[in-house]
Amino acid sequence: MQANDLLKQISFIKEIDKLKYIQRKTKLFNSDRHENDAEHSWHLAMMALVLAKHSNRPVDILKVVKMVLIHDIVEIDAGDTFLYDTLKNHTNTREELAAAKRIFGLLPEKQAEEFVEIWKEFEDGITDEAKFAKSMDRFEPLLQNTSNNGGTWTEFNVDYQKVYDKKKAIKDGSASIWNYAENLINESVEKGILKKTP
Amino acid sequence: MQANDLLKQISFIKEIDKLKYIQRKTKLFNSDRHENDAEHSWHLAMMALVLAKHSNRPVDILKVVKMVLIHDIVEIDAGDTFLYDTLKNHTNTREELAAAKRIFGLLPEKQAEEFVEIWKEFEDGITDEAKFAKSMDRFEPLLQNTSNNGGTWTEFNVDYQKVYDKKKAIKDGSASIWNYAENLINESVEKGILKKTP
Repeated sequence: MQANDLLKQISFIKEIDKLKYIQRKTKLFNSDRHENDAEHSWHLAMMALVLAKHSNRPVDILKVVKMVLIHDIVEIDAGDTFLYDTLKNHTNTREELAAAKRIFGLLPEKQAEEFVEIWKEFEDGITDEAKFAKSMDRFEPLLQNTSNNGGTWTEFNVDYQKVYDKKKAIKDGSASIWNYAENLINESVEKGILKKTP
Repeated sequence: MQANDLLKQISFIKEIDKLKYIQRKTKLFNSDRHENDAEHSWHLAMMALVLAKHSNRPVDILKVVKMVLIHDIVEIDAGDTFLYDTLKNHTNTREELAAAKRIFGLLPEKQAEEFVEIWKEFEDGITDEAKFAKSMDRFEPLLQNTSNNGGTWTEFNVDYQKVYDKKKAIKDGSASIWNYAENLINESVEKGILKKTP
């Protein structure tokens, strides 16, 4: 039984290697090189560990780390959706749910269920863990874009209000990180790397 | 105070972005593309979560995940050392310790100490958590090399005995994963992708 479980787990481990090929719109810090989903997930896990004390409410940090490590695995099948995409809503698409079931379904049954549940919990964004995990996911590209002269904001002509509306979700996870992030957004307008009007 | 801590934490978060540029000798599964340290660290964290039940002894899985997420951060300063390098011993070099102190030292003091301790614990390989974390670090490139017709074994002319001697550390973390790994090594010899003699 355990040996059979191991074979399933190894097939999952091989499958998720594909996350390293999913390119995001954002680029590495001070760089022209696009970030991929595996790098992004590692960075969010590090941020969650380092910033845990800034969470508005006490969180199960292991669960937060699990969330950010797996949150983009569905993109192996469904592809990366740009945060400011106006045609496709990122959250809980049917395509992503099918992807979660197929990919996590490679694991032994109970483990597959556990991962699908954690992924759904992240997507729903209701629990304290999901709110903090989502604040990490919003915060990293903000830091990247400000290091890259506006980055995707400039490249895709995203204005202040759109950025503000998406980024304010950080506040639900951490008021102190939001305080920093809000200043950074305002400074970006002053510096001319984020436009007030489209 | 908390705001000051946040500034230090953000400078650390920016600094570790450099891990995404540290190229490993091994390549992605079924691929010609080199893996980088951030991708590798993410993959080990996923493996640790998925394979935790195979650990010889019960482990604090959050600590194992922390270990594998941070274990290569010193390479930002010290560079990647190839497992089969005969000139440079990977473990606990003075260079790596200085790197750990500089990079984790960007964090608030208590947090810096915590991360340096976790990194040292991993390097020492004595605790159950370190043994299991190290078994993940040995197991991933074994899976990669077998998917890549011998990968670095072929490229750098590494023979069976050297591979066996390095990989048997997997047994200290997990007898069941070692059982699988040992079979994989033997099969690799039969398939001709790992040579018995140099």
